[in-house]
Formats: sequence, structure tokens, C-alpha cells
Amino acid sequence: MSTSRLEAFSDGVFAIAATLLILDVHADGPRLGHALLLAWPSYAAYGVSFLTIGIMWVNHHTVLEQIGRADRTFLFLNVFFLMLVAFVPFPTRLVAEHFRDGGARAADLSYGITMTSTAVFYNALWLYAARGGRLLREDADASVVSGITRSYRVGPLMYLAATLVALASPRISVALFTIIALSYVMESSVFAPRES
Amino acid sequence: MSTSRLEAFSDGVFAIAATLLILDVHADGPRLGHALLLAWPSYAAYGVSFLTIGIMWVNHHTVLEQIGRADRTFLFLNVFFLMLVAFVPFPTRLVAEHFRDGGARAADLSYGITMTSTAVFYNALWLYAARGGRLLREDADASVVSGITRSYRVGPLMYLAATLVALASPRISVALFTIIALSYVMESSVFAPRES
Amino acid sequence: MSTSRLEAFSDGVFAIAATLLILDVHADGPRLGHALLLAWPSYAAYGVSFLTIGIMWVNHHTVLEQIGRADRTFLFLNVFFLMLVAFVPFPTRLVAEHFRDGGARAADLSYGITMTSTAVFYNALWLYAARGGRLLREDADASVVSGITRSYRVGPLMYLAATLVALASPRISVALFTIIALSYVMESSVFAPRES
Amino acid sequence: MSTSRLEAFSDGVFAIAATLLILDVHADGPRLGHALLLAWPSYAAYGVSFLTIGIMWVNHHTVLEQIGRADRTFLFLNVFFLMLVAFVPFPTRLVAEHFRDGGARAADLSYGITMTSTAVFYNALWLYAARGGRLLREDADASVVSGITRSYRVGPLMYLAATLVALASPRISVALFTIIALSYVMESSVFAPRES
Repeated sequence: MSTSRLEAFSDGVFAIAATLLILDVHADGPRLGHALLLAWPSYAAYGVSFLTIGIMWVNHHTVLEQIGRADRTFLFLNVFFLMLVAFVPFPTRLVAEHFRDGGARAADLSYGITMTSTAVFYNALWLYAARGGRLLREDADASVVSGITRSYRVGPLMYLAATLVALASPRISVALFTIIALSYVMESSVFAPRES
Repeated sequence: MSTSRLEAFSDGVFAIAATLLILDVHADGPRLGHALLLAWPSYAAYGVSFLTIGIMWVNHHTVLEQIGRADRTFLFLNVFFLMLVAFVPFPTRLVAEHFRDGGARAADLSYGITMTSTAVFYNALWLYAARGGRLLREDADASVVSGITRSYRVGPLMYLAATLVALASPRISVALFTIIALSYVMESSVFAPRES
Repeated sequence: MSTSRLEAFSDGVFAIAATLLILDVHADGPRLGHALLLAWPSYAAYGVSFLTIGIMWVNHHTVLEQIGRADRTFLFLNVFFLMLVAFVPFPTRLVAEHFRDGGARAADLSYGITMTSTAVFYNALWLYAARGGRLLREDADASVVSGITRSYRVGPLMYLAATLVALASPRISVALFTIIALSYVMESSVFAPRES
Repeated sequence: MSTSRLEAFSDGVFAIAATLLILDVHADGPRLGHALLLAWPSYAAYGVSFLTIGIMWVNHHTVLEQIGRADRTFLFLNVFFLMLVAFVPFPTRLVAEHFRDGGARAADLSYGITMTSTAVFYNALWLYAARGGRLLREDADASVVSGITRSYRVGPLMYLAATLVALASPRISVALFTIIALSYVMESSVFAPRES
């Protein structure tokens, strides 16, 4: 089974989940200018979640490049993984809406649990394909493969830590989610040292 | 006529229908943490419907692999089929919203009728293509072809049964829809014994 | 310039416009079963518009098969055409919502004007590509090309007629839109006599 | 790294962002016909933004044709760029809703800032790829490359000027956004002199 339709379906879900985020950006009130400035948490939430979905897409891209074929188990693992990616707009909306009220903690926990679960499923998807070279391409690069395994292992731990911080301080937790997203962009060269 | 744009359009509808499901996941109230826990039927409905659409996509994938070309009748059968797939978010929303009130029975019936119709159209789509090898690839695998035919025949009956159960007990009906989805994932190896 | 990304973008817009239609299907009230039966105009509107967008997609498919390359004018004509396709959910929502009230005439006119404009732009798109063989494939089939030209010429006239009928009777107008959609499916073999 | 999945993801975001615009076109009131006429600013906003996203898509298409490969920095620049494209429905909704009230200035500023930022990021994306031929195809056409560079440089300036005009006159600012979109369509032959 080739991976081309799996990529098409996945790209669709990534693109839609990211683009739907805009439906939850709102600003209204008697003085629109003021309301627009006050709405910055919803822009920030939009930005962080779009970026995070973008990172997942880039990584999915990187992973699929090492994979030569799919079996039905892999297709279903991918469906479960996409189910979590497509869930991201919901906690994003909660974080933006409850940034300034008593619901911040619960909102951040829902965001963190979603992200941690997504990272766990990402590892499951990758390990299923990579374990014993099950679905890897014949010519998969061993150092890239072990680089991906090492790099992905960190994801669930980082997200779990940022989630637990939400119990003590929702603000710091949100800052950590932002830092994780930005650091993925910055340090994306860890297991892909030189490509250009 | 090749099947590549049919696949692109279908992948698009599958991906969008699945991803739109998140727009109907809501949680609000004075105590967000409490509201989030109380909203579990909407997460479950999201999960079951996303998974069901994912299964349909995997099966569409399996079917199209046996099909070598399309004619206009097949394109239109596919459009009717996708019309039902894209309808799924509506009864899903109803099931989640009315899980605890008197509308549960009607909601479950609407969900079941949608799923049964989708399964019927899936059979129509497949039988039109497979009957006499009309649109099959030259090298289509006869055992896979008859395996698909056998496997798909069961779908409408299972969904019809679960739908009728809703008349007696909406809760059991919902449980059956969940079990059907999960069993499709588990037993997906029936007509695709070993691929990896 | 090849047509592959034009097809990808177009397939995306067709798929999304069709799938978004479900967001406007609603049913609510104290007795859900009753509300679901009463909501049939919104299912019908969903069905007719999904089918119509599906027909446009099938025809776009047929047209692009005769076209070998794109220039920027064709890309922009296609963008204008897709702008009208993506507009369809709006008048569809109006027709469904105002089926039983005094807004039916205005709703049907908005639907008819959208459909007539879409059909006009479809002709513009096709004639720009086909006139003098400007963008046709080297091996384009002359009888298919003239068949498409003849077949598409009828579209704007049929839709205009059904639109004008709305001034006298909104109900008959809606029936005509349905008949046009179904007859396109039925008679789709006019300029594509035998393909299987 | 090839550019095919980058194109698929980008086409998805462009198509969805453009098609979602219709969700913000509304018309309601006791007299629907009257309400439909009064709602023209929301049709105009839909049209201008759909066209603008369409132009961005055509240009993305033109740019990618000169690019032979992607690195992770380019993937992330593209994600940031798409984050801005997918943001367009939000200020579009504001411009349409506040066309006749005191929020027009703030709405136009939000639209202008979004468009200016998008144009800036487009330049960043292109210059990163083109500088020193970093990601260009072996056989990239030098005159097309320098034509794109020259043509794109103007974009941010035009949008910034139209944005600043909003401080003095929201109406003229909106007219300028429309003119910029239409002139891009008209003068799109500047750096692509003859292709058909």
C-alpha cells in the first residue's frame, strides 16, 4: 500500500484544522479599536496553535519521507493521530476565551492534555513504523531514523511538564506552550542538520 | 477517465467532514472544569464519528486500489456517497447535544439512518464498479475483490440493527455504534490478511 | 504552466464548499423528532446544492481533461468561477430558512442569480480555453470539445428561466432547480456517450 | 526535500481560507429582499478577499515553479506565511460588519495590517529561496526570478499606503484595497509576459 493518499488525507486534516482556528478569533464591542487590542489573547492562541499544527505537519512530512509503505494498522494509527490534531481548535478556543477568568486553569489543562496526547500518538505512529524497520524505505537513513526517535521522545515529556505547571500557574503554562512551539521551530535542525 | 481527481475530491470531503466535527464540541458554564467533564458525550461523539469517517476513508482507499478507471456514473455514485459522508456532522451534533434529554431517541435514529444509508451507498458504489469487473484494474486480486464484497455486505445490516435498537434504548444504540466503529478497526484484517 | 495545482486548488474549493453546506442544516425544538421531520427543506437544500456542486466538479474534471496547459488569464477566470462556487452555501442557507415564510421569493432569486452567474462563468472559462484551441491538449477530441460547448451553452438559459419563475412562484422555482440538478446527472451522457 | 507536500498543504490552506469567507456573509430581517440588497458590503468584502487570496495562490504557484527544493527554514517561513493567509477571514468579517458604523476605521486598519504583513512575509519567503539561488531550480529563468523580486517589492508599500489612508478616510481605504486586488489581476502580466 503506497502512502500517497495517506499524505493527501493528512495534509487535508492539518490544513483544515489550522485554518478553522480563525473561526474562533472574535472582537466586538461598542469601541472596535479598543476591542481589537483587548483581543490579543485570541490572536496569540491562534498563532501558537497554527504554528504547532504547522510543526506537526512539517514533522509528519519528515517522518513520511522515511516511510516506504503503509499497512492498515498504520492507517488507523494515523487516523487516531489526526483525530487529536483536529481536536486542537477546541482547547485553543477555551484558552483564548478564558485567559482572563477563573476558567484559565481548566482551559490550559485541556490544551496541555490534548498536546501531550498528540505527542504520545506521534511517537506511537513513528515507533510502529520504525521498530525493526517495519515500514521504512529500503534506503532509509539510519542516522535520520534514530534522530527522529530521539527527538520525538522528548515531546510528550515537555508537554506533560507544561501541563502540570498549569495546576500552579496558568500564565506560566501558556508561556511554556508558546516557548515549546517556538523552540521546535528554532531547534528543528537537531535531526536534520543540513538540507539546503 | 483516471481516478486521481476523484481521489483528491473524496479525500478533501473526508478530511473536511471529519475536521468540521470539532466545531460542535462545546463546553461552557460558570465552572469550566466542571463543564469540561460534563461535556464527555460531545468528545465521545467526536471520537466515534471521526473514527467512522476515518474507517470509510481507509475503505475508500482499499476499494480505489482495485479500481482502474472511472466513468460518469461512478463519479456521480461517488458524489452521492460523499453527500452522506459530509452529512455525518449533523446527526453527530444531535447525538451529543441530546444525550441526556428526551431527544436522544430521535437523535440516535437520525445518526443510525445516516450511517445505514452511507453503508448502503458504499455497497452500491462498490458493486457498480466490481460487477462483471466493470471498472476493476486488469490485475485486480480476485480474492481481495470477493473479500470486499463479503465484508461490505454486513455493514448496512449492522447499522440497521443498531438503529432499530434506538427505538427501545437510545443508550444501547449509541454503545452499538461505538462498538461497530471499534470492531471495524480491530477486524480490519478480515479481507486484507497480511500487508506489511 | 501545468494544470495540476489548479486542479488541486479547485478540488479543494469544491470539496470545502460542498462540505460546509452541512453547517447550515439545523433542527431544534422541544420535540426533536418533530423538529427533524419539519426540517426537511434544509435536507433538500443540502442535497440539491451538494449535488449541484458535485456536478460542477464532474464537469470541471471533464473540461480539464481536454485542457493541456494554463495561462494566468485562465487561472484568474478559474478563481472568479470558484468564487461563485464557494458562494453557493449562502443562498442555499437562505432558501432552506425561508422556505415557509415571506422571504422565499428573495431567497430563490439569490439562489438563481448565483447559479446563473456560475453557469455564465463556466462558459467563459471554457470558451477562453477552447476558442481557437488556445489551451487545449494537442490530442483534444474535437467531438468532445464541441459537445462540451453545446452542452454548457444551455446551462445559463435553464438557470435564468428557473430564476425568473421565482418571481411568479417560489415553490415551482425551487422544484425547477431540483429538476435541473437531477437532469444533469441523468443526461450527463449527452457529450460523453461511452467511457467505461 | 521535494516541494510537493508543501504545495498540497498550501493549496489546502488557500482553498479553505477562501471558502470559509462565505460563513461571514449574512442577510436577515423581516424583509429578506431589502436585507439582501443592504448586505452588499459583505458580498464586496467576500469578493475582494476571495480574489486577494486567489491572487496570493496564483503567485505562490508562480514562485514555486521557480523553486526546486525546500529546506526546513523554508517550510516554516511558509507556515508563517499561511498563518497570515488563513487570518484574512477575520478582518474581512470586521470590514463587512462595520462598514456603516464607527468601527470602520479600526476594521480597515486590521485588514490593512493583515494584508501588509502578508505581503512582507511573501517577500521574506521569496527572498529566502531566491537569494544566491539557494532553493531555485537548476534551470530557473533569471528574468522571471528578477521580475518576481521587483514585482513583490511593491506589494508591502501599496498595502501600507492603503492602510495609512484608513486613518483619514475608511471609505477611500476600502476602495484602495479593491483597486489593488483588481490591478493585480489586470497587470499580472508584468513578470509573466507571454505564456499562452
